[in-house]
Amino acid sequence: YIGGCDGVAIVKSAELIGEEPSGTIPHALVLMMGSTIKAVRAFHEVIKPNVKRVALIDTFNDEKFEAINVAEEVGDFLYALRLDTPASRKGDFLRILEEVRWELNLRGYGRIKLFVSGGLDEDDIVRLNPVVDGYGIGTSVSNAKVVDFAMDIVEIEDKPIAKRGKMSGSKRVLRCPKCHQDKTVPLAQKLSRCSCGGKLIDLLVPLVKNGRLVKKQPSHKEVRGYVLRQLKKFPV
Amino acid sequence: YIGGCDGVAIVKSAELIGEEPSGTIPHALVLMMGSTIKAVRAFHEVIKPNVKRVALIDTFNDEKFEAINVAEEVGDFLYALRLDTPASRKGDFLRILEEVRWELNLRGYGRIKLFVSGGLDEDDIVRLNPVVDGYGIGTSVSNAKVVDFAMDIVEIEDKPIAKRGKMSGSKRVLRCPKCHQDKTVPLAQKLSRCSCGGKLIDLLVPLVKNGRLVKKQPSHKEVRGYVLRQLKKFPV
Amino acid sequence: YIGGCDGVAIVKSAELIGEEPSGTIPHALVLMMGSTIKAVRAFHEVIKPNVKRVALIDTFNDEKFEAINVAEEVGDFLYALRLDTPASRKGDFLRILEEVRWELNLRGYGRIKLFVSGGLDEDDIVRLNPVVDGYGIGTSVSNAKVVDFAMDIVEIEDKPIAKRGKMSGSKRVLRCPKCHQDKTVPLAQKLSRCSCGGKLIDLLVPLVKNGRLVKKQPSHKEVRGYVLRQLKKFPV
Amino acid sequence: YIGGCDGVAIVKSAELIGEEPSGTIPHALVLMMGSTIKAVRAFHEVIKPNVKRVALIDTFNDEKFEAINVAEEVGDFLYALRLDTPASRKGDFLRILEEVRWELNLRGYGRIKLFVSGGLDEDDIVRLNPVVDGYGIGTSVSNAKVVDFAMDIVEIEDKPIAKRGKMSGSKRVLRCPKCHQDKTVPLAQKLSRCSCGGKLIDLLVPLVKNGRLVKKQPSHKEVRGYVLRQLKKFPV
Amino acid sequence: YIGGCDGVAIVKSAELIGEEPSGTIPHALVLMMGSTIKAVRAFHEVIKPNVKRVALIDTFNDEKFEAINVAEEVGDFLYALRLDTPASRKGDFLRILEEVRWELNLRGYGRIKLFVSGGLDEDDIVRLNPVVDGYGIGTSVSNAKVVDFAMDIVEIEDKPIAKRGKMSGSKRVLRCPKCHQDKTVPLAQKLSRCSCGGKLIDLLVPLVKNGRLVKKQPSHKEVRGYVLRQLKKFPV
Amino acid sequence: YIGGCDGVAIVKSAELIGEEPSGTIPHALVLMMGSTIKAVRAFHEVIKPNVKRVALIDTFNDEKFEAINVAEEVGDFLYALRLDTPASRKGDFLRILEEVRWELNLRGYGRIKLFVSGGLDEDDIVRLNPVVDGYGIGTSVSNAKVVDFAMDIVEIEDKPIAKRGKMSGSKRVLRCPKCHQDKTVPLAQKLSRCSCGGKLIDLLVPLVKNGRLVKKQPSHKEVRGYVLRQLKKFPV
Repeated sequence: YIGGCDGVAIVKSAELIGEEPSGTIPHALVLMMGSTIKAVRAFHEVIKPNVKRVALIDTFNDEKFEAINVAEEVGDFLYALRLDTPASRKGDFLRILEEVRWELNLRGYGRIKLFVSGGLDEDDIVRLNPVVDGYGIGTSVSNAKVVDFAMDIVEIEDKPIAKRGKMSGSKRVLRCPKCHQDKTVPLAQKLSRCSCGGKLIDLLVPLVKNGRLVKKQPSHKEVRGYVLRQLKKFPV
Repeated sequence: YIGGCDGVAIVKSAELIGEEPSGTIPHALVLMMGSTIKAVRAFHEVIKPNVKRVALIDTFNDEKFEAINVAEEVGDFLYALRLDTPASRKGDFLRILEEVRWELNLRGYGRIKLFVSGGLDEDDIVRLNPVVDGYGIGTSVSNAKVVDFAMDIVEIEDKPIAKRGKMSGSKRVLRCPKCHQDKTVPLAQKLSRCSCGGKLIDLLVPLVKNGRLVKKQPSHKEVRGYVLRQLKKFPV
Repeated sequence: YIGGCDGVAIVKSAELIGEEPSGTIPHALVLMMGSTIKAVRAFHEVIKPNVKRVALIDTFNDEKFEAINVAEEVGDFLYALRLDTPASRKGDFLRILEEVRWELNLRGYGRIKLFVSGGLDEDDIVRLNPVVDGYGIGTSVSNAKVVDFAMDIVEIEDKPIAKRGKMSGSKRVLRCPKCHQDKTVPLAQKLSRCSCGGKLIDLLVPLVKNGRLVKKQPSHKEVRGYVLRQLKKFPV
Repeated sequence: YIGGCDGVAIVKSAELIGEEPSGTIPHALVLMMGSTIKAVRAFHEVIKPNVKRVALIDTFNDEKFEAINVAEEVGDFLYALRLDTPASRKGDFLRILEEVRWELNLRGYGRIKLFVSGGLDEDDIVRLNPVVDGYGIGTSVSNAKVVDFAMDIVEIEDKPIAKRGKMSGSKRVLRCPKCHQDKTVPLAQKLSRCSCGGKLIDLLVPLVKNGRLVKKQPSHKEVRGYVLRQLKKFPV
Repeated sequence: YIGGCDGVAIVKSAELIGEEPSGTIPHALVLMMGSTIKAVRAFHEVIKPNVKRVALIDTFNDEKFEAINVAEEVGDFLYALRLDTPASRKGDFLRILEEVRWELNLRGYGRIKLFVSGGLDEDDIVRLNPVVDGYGIGTSVSNAKVVDFAMDIVEIEDKPIAKRGKMSGSKRVLRCPKCHQDKTVPLAQKLSRCSCGGKLIDLLVPLVKNGRLVKKQPSHKEVRGYVLRQLKKFPV
Repeated sequence: YIGGCDGVAIVKSAELIGEEPSGTIPHALVLMMGSTIKAVRAFHEVIKPNVKRVALIDTFNDEKFEAINVAEEVGDFLYALRLDTPASRKGDFLRILEEVRWELNLRGYGRIKLFVSGGLDEDDIVRLNPVVDGYGIGTSVSNAKVVDFAMDIVEIEDKPIAKRGKMSGSKRVLRCPKCHQDKTVPLAQKLSRCSCGGKLIDLLVPLVKNGRLVKKQPSHKEVRGYVLRQLKKFPV
């Protein structure tokens, strides 16, 4: 969510960020009801109306005919279809999605959106975007790569000293909000302007002093807004 | 067929070789009847009993549940299932086949065989063989690569002469039936034994003399038998 | 020929398209006469004057010296030299051609053209074009790749239905003659303008009605002209 | 530790497994004392004698000369040298280690062992093993790859049913302790012998029943012993 | 030197080109004196003042601390540091150089330059240039690749003739000093203008006539100047 | 020659090693005489009979017909044909050689050998060996790769010391003549037996003492014999 997603699915995670969790019917409901359409109808009867109806169509049947069935039976109140197609059936996922889109449009359901999920990463999104309206991403978002770091002595009683392989002395890390470049300089160095003319800001600021937080933590919404603003500075 | 296949599907081709054509229910029948089970039942009612019943299960539904449905409804008289899975659904065809095999076995249909078809070639067969009992091959068998050849003068009035890049003089092409090696030698050269000890036979023999066939053509069965016997000499 | 070639060599093919066949001296003539120059002279004596004289220079001798010999002996009436260099001598065919071109120019035969033939494809043409004036292409033109296609039911009694992996419903295939893009839409869809502004034309038109041709077949010349006009729309 | 390491360095981790933590002098001590030899001497004076003395020799100086210095000054009581060489100096780490080994041997310190650490993984160990006596591994051990898994319904009221892409029905997972192969079969299937003749054991056994642990957890030592016994079954 | 280097290190080579040889302290001096600082001081006492003082800092110690030591002890009269870092320590040479540069700058020695040497080639220079001020290059400059050439007869008594594979006839080799393209034409061909408009010059000019040099040889400085002028015509 | 060749072609080189130079007719002679056969006849008339007659057949004509011509005209006294085929004609050199061999054998000249030359290296020899009897090798033999080496101080007044990256101390380099392994050990180390049981010999032996050679230099024949004996220890 703080990385820019529109919502989270886990109840616990949603509580954590103070947002409503959002999601779609799970496979379990479809399996228990014994049919996708029964599951969608049951969901529609029970769940309050402000929740958008999204039918999960990959449990029993091929996506093409299940999409047609679901659209013809419950298409009136459906917001979207979700395809969580298993890997063994994803020969050409884009082609499956084009086929579903074609069959829906042909029958007048051009307004039903397509959501996809299941082991997708950033490359899939670029490829599927022409026909897909929304993505449910799990593993590739939740599991970041480990950042290897070490705590090193860089100064002893104001004298810069560090082991081989490390820059010695206390440092400032400066970022230019204009050209988005970072720069590391000795702590004592006065530097307030980037070579591009931007005003540099210090990235290393004390969060805790004498055991007390001295800086207000940004809310989840603020972090998310900050990430989304920065994203606009990078070309796709 | 002459390359070693067990049968042919096209009526015309079967006539040509004097064999019974064999095949399975087409997609057209399943589409016209509106359901795989109806199509299999209709086929079973009408077709004479010596034809093995093979259900085509990829038309409407995912292979897994269609296999279960078909087995539970008409499994008693079924010989095999055929999966003509479209390329866009072939994410991991072996995995789909293992899944179908598992579900059949779990319900006591271990004796129903699995046939596959659709754009398969020799590499697919090697990979799928552990779970597949039969293959329907079209394109990769029917469309051989072009063999580039040229008719060249190699001798003029008994004097060997040929353009640059060609061996001059009339030749014998000899094959050793024992070690299956070919050898090209001048026509005049006496040579009857291979270095392996086998007795060499001439491959170039006159088929037509004075406008009349002088050698009986082998039947389709004989060609096929010859190919199958030779195949055993090559390791897989 | 219908793909844009300037002529065909086989008498039968030429009859078929109602054009004069064209070609050059074959290796057989050179071999029978025993020398390239004798063959060219004999050809020159017998063949009517409107046929351009092209000497085939790769039969006996290396291209370089044979080109010099032929030019010096019969260069006056020669239109071109043809190099059908065998693969085993084609270490660097471009280099051989540059060498022949150099030797001809050096001796004042800059107007004699160079034709090449023998297992050439489209990549060779791009590479050799700076020194070559004409090409004789056989195998790579006459043997097109197989186009895999299937006849599928897409509609039953006006209801769109098609097997998994196929778009259902009757369709129009539209081409924009301006931007040369194709577009497939449902049969019922009205669409007459391309997004580029061009007027779309239907590619699927009935050729046969009630067993009778209802559309005049274009002549070979018309097909060829159509191909050549389209070729200009694609960058090399 | 449970994966087969000989010890752990973090006090907390050692408590957890009920072992003595073990480790070497840190860079911090060498930096604070201002010299490797001073740090080793201070350590030797203060630390109880049963702890083996290991000198960390990469803080200030090149490994070669620091190894010679340390060996000549405090070699009498040293058990090993540790090289935590920074990545920017690891042009050819094996060559550096051979050089250190050579210089130690040349001066009669063949019995001082060599320990290495710093971003090493299993491939490094294979390569460095001829000259290295011990390894300190952090990141590549502590940070396992994420195992993607999902909880799926495979049976509803004793009827096997699972979504597309999943094998349905309850299952047994069997392992053969003899040939170390795993096998998944339906729950009801009786199977007690592996095809190799070994006696199969069930891997899925209930750990918790009615909210109570019903199986004793193995101690850390037992897990470690189990891993080490299994390791012997795999070739290096 | 004639390829554009600023100087040569070998006394003999310098004599040959009439330049002063230049170089830095060798490892032998540092090893004999037993310390880099002693070696630099001794050099400073003895060598005449117009020679720039360059300290070789990779003999005994890691470059980082040796750079700090040398700068603090003799930095006042130092012109540059030289890093001849052995391959086994060059894990990331750019990173080592950045570290040395950082430590020097932090202590106020920003004016001390960095020289590097040891198995460097043109690719290294491109990568290291942001932090390096000078290079000592040996092997990759002194050992050019062999140029394969042959002496061939191309003309006999004014008649152009050459073996297969060679262009016959005497030739002019022309270069356009404007667009730097070369062109080979028959000797008799008049050609004075390049297609770019530049005035062509003959590259083949007689150096020796009747056993006497007829063209003044350019001095080493002139060759070097010529190379440097041409270099400016090629993009990096 | 000292690397194992059977002879040398340059007069100066042959003098140097005290052997007779050997070689074949050059292209120059063929070009001057105007025909290969004339050149071979002239050579045969003039040169003393103990020199084997080798015809160079690639000057004017394609190898195939020139081989036939030469064999038919002067085959009686010919020892071998030499093909110095230019790179631009070497499309498939092995195929050209097989063709020449075929044409010679067909006409009863099986005893005429085939020599090849022109830019060949060790890989070509492996491929061409089935049809070729001898090789003329120039560039790839005469131009060895540069061996990078440095003179380093490793000991000062009996104390081992060497710069970083070098093993210190004087050393012995030992070779085992039995298993052909080399081993470097400190000078003082007694070692006379290889681990394979062979008796080690010192490779570093004084050649010059007090300005006088103290070891007899092996003759060229002895060096060659030594190389050929060692070659047998390495698999092809």
